[in-house]
Amino acid sequence: MKSTKIYYKKLKFKNPILVVGLPGIGSVGALVGEHLKNELGAKRFATLYSPHFIHQTIMLKSGYTRLISNRFYYKELKSSTLILLIGDTQAPTPEGQYDINEKIVRFFKHLGGKQIYTIGGYSAGNHYIQTPRVFGIATDKQTKDALSQKGVLFGQTNGAIWGSAGMVVSFAKKNKLHAACIMGETGALEIDANAARAVLEVLKKVIGVNVNLDNIDKIKAETEKLLKELEAASKPQEGQGATSFPYIR
Amino acid sequence: MKSTKIYYKKLKFKNPILVVGLPGIGSVGALVGEHLKNELGAKRFATLYSPHFIHQTIMLKSGYTRLISNRFYYKELKSSTLILLIGDTQAPTPEGQYDINEKIVRFFKHLGGKQIYTIGGYSAGNHYIQTPRVFGIATDKQTKDALSQKGVLFGQTNGAIWGSAGMVVSFAKKNKLHAACIMGETGALEIDANAARAVLEVLKKVIGVNVNLDNIDKIKAETEKLLKELEAASKPQEGQGATSFPYIR
Amino acid sequence: MKSTKIYYKKLKFKNPILVVGLPGIGSVGALVGEHLKNELGAKRFATLYSPHFIHQTIMLKSGYTRLISNRFYYKELKSSTLILLIGDTQAPTPEGQYDINEKIVRFFKHLGGKQIYTIGGYSAGNHYIQTPRVFGIATDKQTKDALSQKGVLFGQTNGAIWGSAGMVVSFAKKNKLHAACIMGETGALEIDANAARAVLEVLKKVIGVNVNLDNIDKIKAETEKLLKELEAASKPQEGQGATSFPYIR
Amino acid sequence: MKSTKIYYKKLKFKNPILVVGLPGIGSVGALVGEHLKNELGAKRFATLYSPHFIHQTIMLKSGYTRLISNRFYYKELKSSTLILLIGDTQAPTPEGQYDINEKIVRFFKHLGGKQIYTIGGYSAGNHYIQTPRVFGIATDKQTKDALSQKGVLFGQTNGAIWGSAGMVVSFAKKNKLHAACIMGETGALEIDANAARAVLEVLKKVIGVNVNLDNIDKIKAETEKLLKELEAASKPQEGQGATSFPYIR
Repeated sequence: MKSTKIYYKKLKFKNPILVVGLPGIGSVGALVGEHLKNELGAKRFATLYSPHFIHQTIMLKSGYTRLISNRFYYKELKSSTLILLIGDTQAPTPEGQYDINEKIVRFFKHLGGKQIYTIGGYSAGNHYIQTPRVFGIATDKQTKDALSQKGVLFGQTNGAIWGSAGMVVSFAKKNKLHAACIMGETGALEIDANAARAVLEVLKKVIGVNVNLDNIDKIKAETEKLLKELEAASKPQEGQGATSFPYIR
Repeated sequence: MKSTKIYYKKLKFKNPILVVGLPGIGSVGALVGEHLKNELGAKRFATLYSPHFIHQTIMLKSGYTRLISNRFYYKELKSSTLILLIGDTQAPTPEGQYDINEKIVRFFKHLGGKQIYTIGGYSAGNHYIQTPRVFGIATDKQTKDALSQKGVLFGQTNGAIWGSAGMVVSFAKKNKLHAACIMGETGALEIDANAARAVLEVLKKVIGVNVNLDNIDKIKAETEKLLKELEAASKPQEGQGATSFPYIR
Repeated sequence: MKSTKIYYKKLKFKNPILVVGLPGIGSVGALVGEHLKNELGAKRFATLYSPHFIHQTIMLKSGYTRLISNRFYYKELKSSTLILLIGDTQAPTPEGQYDINEKIVRFFKHLGGKQIYTIGGYSAGNHYIQTPRVFGIATDKQTKDALSQKGVLFGQTNGAIWGSAGMVVSFAKKNKLHAACIMGETGALEIDANAARAVLEVLKKVIGVNVNLDNIDKIKAETEKLLKELEAASKPQEGQGATSFPYIR
Repeated sequence: MKSTKIYYKKLKFKNPILVVGLPGIGSVGALVGEHLKNELGAKRFATLYSPHFIHQTIMLKSGYTRLISNRFYYKELKSSTLILLIGDTQAPTPEGQYDINEKIVRFFKHLGGKQIYTIGGYSAGNHYIQTPRVFGIATDKQTKDALSQKGVLFGQTNGAIWGSAGMVVSFAKKNKLHAACIMGETGALEIDANAARAVLEVLKKVIGVNVNLDNIDKIKAETEKLLKELEAASKPQEGQGATSFPYIR
C-alpha cells in the first residue's frame, strides 16, 4: 500500500457540511466528532487508509480487527447533510499530513461540499480552564462573521495550528471552499470535555443541529472530580515529583 | 534498490497455509516460526528484500554474508502445505510496514493461499507469565470459531497490534483471505519461550502438524532458572535500581 | 500535496539579484531578509509550498490563516531588481532540503537571475559577539573578490553550512550561477541582531541599496540590555543551573 | 534534486578494483581510503550526490564550497586500476543506504569492475586494541581464500555490518561481482589509526600496491600519546564520570 486511499459508497448529499473531529490537543476534536456521531446516529459511508498512519491494527471487542483509519459519517439534517470525519490517529510526518489533508478536502469537494469546520484545542497553559473560550481562524469574511456572531473569538490567538485542524482549512482555501478551525481553550488535560462542550455549544448554533450534551457533561464531571481529588492529595506533599494521572498530560 | 521485492522459485503448493513468525513482542513470533522451520525441516523458496529494512548485512559463521531479509519456507503436510515466513527484522517506519505487509499477503494469494496465521506476543504487564493464555483476533467467524475451539480467547484484549502480526491480518481481509493473529500472553521478557510454547500447542491442533517441543522447553527452562537466580539475588537489596539482565526488557 | 510547488505572478525583472534570508543560526538570515523587505517595501510575487515543511498553518492576527511557506518579494533598484526570499521555516529532512533548494535556484534562474547571496549565522562559541566578523564562501573568484573588498572574510571558517544558506550556493554553482553565503559571526543567541546588522552593512555596499538600520539597532539594544540584566542577576548565584532566557539558546 | 546521481568522466580502466573507504566505526574505512588516495596520488573522476545525504555544504579553505558527496578516484597500477571511493558521510536512512549502495555497485560494474573490497571497523569493546586483528566476510570462496592467506580471519565475527561496508558487499553478490568487507578490530576510538594500519597491511599484499604508512603511524602515535596522558590524569580520580576526550567515543 503505497498511497492514501478513500473507499466510499456513492451517495447523494444535499448541501454537505464537513466537521473534522480528529485526535489532537486536549482530544477536543475527537470528543466533538465522536459525540456528534453517537448522538446523531450518523452512518459511515467512507474510510480513509494511509501508509502514513502508524503501522497498527485495532483489536475490536468483537474479536475482529481493522486497520488504523479515518472515517466519514453522514447525517441528513433539515437543509443540509452533516458529514463527520473522525479517526484513530493523524499522520506523524509532514509528508503524510500534506497528502492526507489535501485528499480530505478534495474528497469533500467531490461530494459537492462548500463549508468545512475543523475542531481543535487551543493550548492555554497548565491550569484547568473552568470557562473555556472558543477561538477561531477562517478562510473568509463570511465564515468569520457567522462564527463571531455565535461568540467565537478571532484574532486573539497566534502561533500555528498543528495537523488536520489547521491544514484542512488551508487546503480548503486553496480549493476555494469556505472553512474555519474552531478551537476550545484547554489546559493540561489529555481529554478536556469542558473545552469540547464549549465547541459543541457553538456548533449547535452554527450548523443548526440539536444535540444533547449529557454524555459530554458526564466526562467533564468525572474529570473535575478526579482533579479535585488530585489537588487534595497533592497539598500536604509539597516538593514531590509529578503525580502520574491519566487525564493530565 | 528502491522497492520491496520478493525473489522466489516457482513451485506448486496444495492448499497453502501461511504462518508468519517475525520478530516482535517477547520474540513470540520469531520463536514459533524458527521452531517450526527447524523441527519440520522446511525449505526456503522465497526471499523478501526491502529498502525499508535497516541498512545492515548479516555476518554469517561461514564467513559469507547476506542482506537483511524476510524468508519464506515450505513443508508439505498431509492435505496442505505449510508456508513459514520468518526474518531478521521488521521495517521501522509506517510506509515500510504498509508496503511490505501488503506485498506478503499478495504474494501468498498469488501462491493460491487462503488461510493465514500471524504469531505475536500480547504484552500483559511486568511479571513472568507462568501459564500464558492465548489471545486471538480474526478476519471472519469461521477462523475465529475454529481457533476458539482450540482454546484461543477472543474479545478479551484491546488496544492495537504493532507490525506484521496485525497488519498482515488486515491486508488479508482486504484481499478476501481468511486470517487470524494468535498471541501468546507475555510479561517483560525479550525472549519468552513459554508464551511461544502456548502458541505452538494451539498451532499443532489447528494446522494438524505434529511438532516436538523439547527445544522450546529448553529455552523456557533456562529462562526460568535465570529468573529465579535473579529473584534470589535481588531480594536482599530492596530499593535498588533495575538489574541488567539479558532476558528481560 | 506530493511535491514542492512555487506559485508566482509572471513579472519581468531587470538583472535580478536574489537574497535568501531564511530562519537558521542566530536568526541572522531571517532578520536580514525581513528587515530588507520591510525597509524597502518589497512586494510579494511568489510563494513556495512544500510537503517537506512542518504540518502547520499560521494563525494570522486578522483571524485568517495560511500554510507554512517560503515567500519571494521584489524591489526594483536602480540597475537591478532585488529579490528577497524569506519564510516561516526550512525543511527538517535531507530529502526536503535537496528538493526545495534546487527548486529555489531553478526558479531564480528561470527569472533570468545570475547572482545569489544567502545569509546565515556562523556559530562562534557561547559568548555574545560584540563586534561580529562577516565570513563568506562563494562559487567563483569574481563574487569572492567583490565581497572581500567589502570586508567579508574568506577561508577563515571550516566545517559545513546547514540548510538553504549553504545548499542554495551549491545548487547555484551546479546551475552555473554566481553565489555566495554571507555569514554573521554569532554566539549563543537565538536572535542575534548584531550579527544581522554586520551582514546588512556588507549587503548595503554589495547590492548598492540604502537601508536604514534603526529597527535592527532597536532589537540589538534590547538584547544587550537583557543580557546585562541576566549577567547582573546571575553573578551572586554561582553554581546554579542555567537560567531560562528567551533570547539565548 | 530527487535522486542519487553519479557524475563522471568517461575513462577506460584496465581490470578495475574498487576499495570503499567511507566514514564509519573507528573511521577505519575513511582513514584507509584517504591514506591510499593521498599516498598514491589518485585522481578524482566521479562524484556521487544524493538527496539522502545530510543537507549541508562543506566550507573549503579556499573560500569556495561544495555539496556533501562521495567521490571516486583512480590510480593505474601494474595490471589493474585501483578505484577508491571516499566521502564526507553515509546516508542516515535505510532508504538512502539501499539506493546509494546499489548505485555504487552498478556504477563499478558499468566500469567493467569485478572485485570490490570495502573497509570497516569491527567494534571489539571499550579498550584500545594494541594489535588489532583483521576480520573479513566475503561473497565467494575465491575472495575468502585469497584474503585468508594474507591473515584475514573469517567466521570469527557475528552480528551485522552497518552501512556501505556491508551493503556494497551484498549488492556486489546480487550483481555477480566478487567482494569482501575487510574490518580492522577497534575499541572505543573515534579515529583508530592502528586498526586502519592493520587493514592497510593486508590491502598492500592483496592488491599488490606499495604504500608508505608513515602518515598513518603519525596519527597512531599521537593517539597513543593522548591515551597515555588521559590514563595518567584519570588515575587519581577514581569514581569520577567520563572524561571528555575528542579521540574517544
